[in-house]
Amino acid sequence: MARAAEMQKAVFGGAQASELERSGGADPLRIPRPYLLFLGDETNPGYAKSAFGIRDWAAEDCVGEYSYGDSTLTLGLPEMTPQVAAQHGAKALVIGIANSGGVILEAWRPHLIAAMDAGLHIVSGMHARLGDVPELAEAARANNVRLIDIRRPPANIPIASGRKRSGKRLLTVGTDCALGKKYTALAMARGFEARGIDVDFRATGQTGILIAGGGIPIDAVVSDFEAGAAEMLSPDAADGHWDIIEGQGSLLHPGFAAVSVGLLFGSQPDAFVVCHDPSRTEVLGYPGTPLPDIAEIIEATILLGKRTNPAIRCGGISLNTKSYDAQEAQALIEETARRYGLPAADPIRGGPHFEALLDSCLA
Amino acid sequence: MARAAEMQKAVFGGAQASELERSGGADPLRIPRPYLLFLGDETNPGYAKSAFGIRDWAAEDCVGEYSYGDSTLTLGLPEMTPQVAAQHGAKALVIGIANSGGVILEAWRPHLIAAMDAGLHIVSGMHARLGDVPELAEAARANNVRLIDIRRPPANIPIASGRKRSGKRLLTVGTDCALGKKYTALAMARGFEARGIDVDFRATGQTGILIAGGGIPIDAVVSDFEAGAAEMLSPDAADGHWDIIEGQGSLLHPGFAAVSVGLLFGSQPDAFVVCHDPSRTEVLGYPGTPLPDIAEIIEATILLGKRTNPAIRCGGISLNTKSYDAQEAQALIEETARRYGLPAADPIRGGPHFEALLDSCLA
Repeated sequence: MARAAEMQKAVFGGAQASELERSGGADPLRIPRPYLLFLGDETNPGYAKSAFGIRDWAAEDCVGEYSYGDSTLTLGLPEMTPQVAAQHGAKALVIGIANSGGVILEAWRPHLIAAMDAGLHIVSGMHARLGDVPELAEAARANNVRLIDIRRPPANIPIASGRKRSGKRLLTVGTDCALGKKYTALAMARGFEARGIDVDFRATGQTGILIAGGGIPIDAVVSDFEAGAAEMLSPDAADGHWDIIEGQGSLLHPGFAAVSVGLLFGSQPDAFVVCHDPSRTEVLGYPGTPLPDIAEIIEATILLGKRTNPAIRCGGISLNTKSYDAQEAQALIEETARRYGLPAADPIRGGPHFEALLDSCLA
Repeated sequence: MARAAEMQKAVFGGAQASELERSGGADPLRIPRPYLLFLGDETNPGYAKSAFGIRDWAAEDCVGEYSYGDSTLTLGLPEMTPQVAAQHGAKALVIGIANSGGVILEAWRPHLIAAMDAGLHIVSGMHARLGDVPELAEAARANNVRLIDIRRPPANIPIASGRKRSGKRLLTVGTDCALGKKYTALAMARGFEARGIDVDFRATGQTGILIAGGGIPIDAVVSDFEAGAAEMLSPDAADGHWDIIEGQGSLLHPGFAAVSVGLLFGSQPDAFVVCHDPSRTEVLGYPGTPLPDIAEIIEATILLGKRTNPAIRCGGISLNTKSYDAQEAQALIEETARRYGLPAADPIRGGPHFEALLDSCLA
């Protein structure tokens, strides 16, 4: 994890500065660190992807984790109260879990207030604004700490122009939410960097923004401006430069397709990688709704994506094999590569399959 | 036009009441009438679709039109100043034009202030809020009139559930913006009504909302909630009931695809009609970007739409033939029907082709 944090600095150092300038110094880009990661009483790891992501990619910035009630969920970090975390140097409590709808649960309030009483700022990636909850606003005032909503998009996002930009772009897409689009983008940025390629990771969600220190919370953007936000996120760049853009949702998702489509149109990707979890058969949170096939996602991505980049192509498949042992994972990866005639790899496992995926995307 | 206004009342009477209740009585649904339609100094009729739509479908509510500068654009209504309009009974000035980005132009301000000085409320469908312009807010206070932003979506839109709803739905889609999706939906609602079918027109844009007196400004919804807003717009209904939903943008539009996709997923249409203007070769406002073919729109609509309604089918094609004479229009309609093997009609021209389109959608 220390290595991941080092790599993160190498990869994102430049991106942080440019994002900060571009945003006009908006609050989301000045997040006090290190963090205490708040898990609520969540038990489903699928809803704690923010916490896991920060742990894995910004480990040096994590002092500990904090949950309440019957939660069996753990990040493997030291469990500590806000008060103890503050004594260990924590500067902010980060809400590391999400729920459908992005609401700040009433049950969280006493815990967030306790954190503020301990002197911690509160950082949230939820749709709902922390400051709209009167008790939280009052506690922030009383303790002179900040309520930081990283889901607040920058002002003045334009309507997309559709103009083709210079530089190269890669977008991670997926068969569902929460199955590895951010991880894949982060790992590929690291892989490109290791090959000496000029690359920026472009964050589109709360965790990515916390890791990278900048980006646009793309699903919080008004739909008319969605593609325009994606254009803003990856501006013109040098010819050999790559932006690796964190995908969101899925083109075929019953709730979030609009987010994915706007991001695709505005990103104008030269290459995309389809992220998939072979253990998942239904859309997360939508029982009875079958997961689309990888081939359907490729078809839809090319059909739509070629409108703003006629050269769009699928670079390969990223499999999330965390539910499998090494041998099963290897077999799944090879079977998937054969079935779709494309490189397949689990970027977290790395190895020659992953190098082949990088080769294919750069080809 | 009087007939259109009568039909409008017949078609939308029920919808108005239910929308009003459902929205919790939000401002957009209590719009003072009749209107003075403001055209600014716009010269391109493509940007004045709101004004034309209100004139055609709510004629009895239009006292006159008002433009300034070199505008040659006219609705054929009496041209009058706000003061004269107020003397003729007008209650509100409606901004009847749009621009890319939805901004309230500085040049409009003195005209809007003059209208408020004459006692008129101001109604806007722009993205930007009237009340955010200090001079307008001040004039509204001074004259005790309202600034009504009908683009403000209702609060508490949920994330889409993806649950299949009862009743039947038809969505108008298109090869571009501003080529007849609202007109087609209105004309089809009238056509269904004439056949004794229980039908509601569901408005998704500013003009539709002004005509119907209710609806959701779908392109102003945050993208994560886009499909949820579409679900809210056409709730469960009786088995034989049809909702005819006003489409927005185009699935293949460089700027607005996100809007169209969310609306498609949440609408779960049983049938869709592709709206197209044969005189248009490039996307409006995007010179150099070719218009997609009708077949591409059908392909994309079915590929995505079948995720929330596997029974989705194309009911036919609606051609906007306003640039052609009757004979040319007839030829275009017949050629289009042959080429795609689907009923084609210009709903504004009506006739047997239009009846065949209705038959096909109801089949």
